[in-house]
Amino acid sequence: MPHSSAAAVLKPMQIISDAKVHGGRQGVYTIESDACGCDMTFAVFVPPQAKEQLCPVLWYLSGLTCTHANVMDKGEYRRMAAEHGLIIVCPDTSPRGDHVPDDASWQLGKGAAFYLDATEEPWSANFRMESHIIDELSAVIAGHFPADMSRQGIFGHSMGGHGALTLALRHPDRFKSCSAFAPIVQPSTANWSVGALTAYLGPDQAAWRGHDATLLIADGARFPEFLVDQGKSDQYLETGLMPWLFEDACRKAGIPLTYRLHEGYDHSYNFISTFMDDHLAWHASRLAQA
Amino acid sequence: MPHSSAAAVLKPMQIISDAKVHGGRQGVYTIESDACGCDMTFAVFVPPQAKEQLCPVLWYLSGLTCTHANVMDKGEYRRMAAEHGLIIVCPDTSPRGDHVPDDASWQLGKGAAFYLDATEEPWSANFRMESHIIDELSAVIAGHFPADMSRQGIFGHSMGGHGALTLALRHPDRFKSCSAFAPIVQPSTANWSVGALTAYLGPDQAAWRGHDATLLIADGARFPEFLVDQGKSDQYLETGLMPWLFEDACRKAGIPLTYRLHEGYDHSYNFISTFMDDHLAWHASRLAQA
Repeated sequence: MPHSSAAAVLKPMQIISDAKVHGGRQGVYTIESDACGCDMTFAVFVPPQAKEQLCPVLWYLSGLTCTHANVMDKGEYRRMAAEHGLIIVCPDTSPRGDHVPDDASWQLGKGAAFYLDATEEPWSANFRMESHIIDELSAVIAGHFPADMSRQGIFGHSMGGHGALTLALRHPDRFKSCSAFAPIVQPSTANWSVGALTAYLGPDQAAWRGHDATLLIADGARFPEFLVDQGKSDQYLETGLMPWLFEDACRKAGIPLTYRLHEGYDHSYNFISTFMDDHLAWHASRLAQA
Repeated sequence: MPHSSAAAVLKPMQIISDAKVHGGRQGVYTIESDACGCDMTFAVFVPPQAKEQLCPVLWYLSGLTCTHANVMDKGEYRRMAAEHGLIIVCPDTSPRGDHVPDDASWQLGKGAAFYLDATEEPWSANFRMESHIIDELSAVIAGHFPADMSRQGIFGHSMGGHGALTLALRHPDRFKSCSAFAPIVQPSTANWSVGALTAYLGPDQAAWRGHDATLLIADGARFPEFLVDQGKSDQYLETGLMPWLFEDACRKAGIPLTYRLHEGYDHSYNFISTFMDDHLAWHASRLAQA
């Protein structure tokens, strides 16, 4: 059922594609997004168990330049999601459309919305991905799919790892589990996110703290535990990702963190697909009980 | 070592990409192909076992419109290939380049070479995929990779299923195992291949028989056994694939065929990825002994 009065009227959903796979169904859908002021596309995998019972929901947030499709094509999540009975929801990474502001940089604008609600012009009219995911798309998932919304987890990659960590820390009542592949853990200082935070939230860095996993924890936000996997041959490790900052923040706050550095792996879906099964098992074990 | 005197000088190979994945390495390479008169791209997955020993080689042939990349992105073969210690080789589906003849139809020309050596102008200069795979690329794999060429299997999808069945029947000394996802089993009559066979081999249908799995068997070609999986919701089932013709040919010839029709599955990589593990296990068990 819809989880807020604002979503009391269930938003209609258009089916773009739908196919049987690994015993479940992989679909792609669009809604007319009020949050983003444009049509928004998303992918949902429904496992075979959903014929018999409501299933937990695991949100996957993608990285810079991606759409919903990258992880759907290359993430290799369906076999294990079908085994564990997980619904997997993959939103897009930004608003889309000719009327939506953009930037020449791949680190700002379309494909780079950083999972927050922008407050600055011209971005604030459309770049409201937190509202899109937490309110609007959650109501759509609750209303259109056999989802147990009392059991939700969230994970993601790179910018989407940042999204997973920050949304979990900002909405700990919503999510029971959180993990990340090669996340941007401190966007306030990472070389590829400072420009986006300035554009979306303005130059006052005080406003950035609420969208920075390490600073959220420093400011008192808590989550039960995290799993983070990182490739040691990731070209962004030293300048953009800096996972040791997240390790430090978790240690100081007493938040259990399972952090694994993997020899030889890069930043691509080769890395993600290799450790996908581990993440799905992590979430499944934490979402098993209602 | 190279397997023919023509390949005595090992052809150099250019590395396009290379990444660690599932404990092994996925690479993409090009060679200057003499068979096809153009640069030819192919993908190779090398499993972690190859650090210690030569590994069997399993060839995957793709369908119409594909390149080497479709199965690499969507086939979900690496986890299981790493478990079983299989080298997976994924050739392109046709010659490429501005000088290579093409056709407006997706069923002829680039992306649609049907794994044979064309005899008719203008195709015969470049469309020599059987020689490319069986002679040229085999020598490259033998020379550049830790491959046990005495243990090779072959499989594929749709046009590539046709390729796997016909190349196995034409070269039973080369391959120890063969399977197919939704193969074109009788290209001489299937609505999407008659035009290609006419163009590549000429209008005399006698020349087609050597590249038609059902007619090869009728004419006496043999292979130890086959595995064929087919989706029941495949839109090409009735007009292009017609697997019952292959069932009939195998039954008459006494060739063991494991044929499985799967409720609800279509012709896409959703179907292929679902049954990929089964095919890899099938080949691994037959390629386990030298």
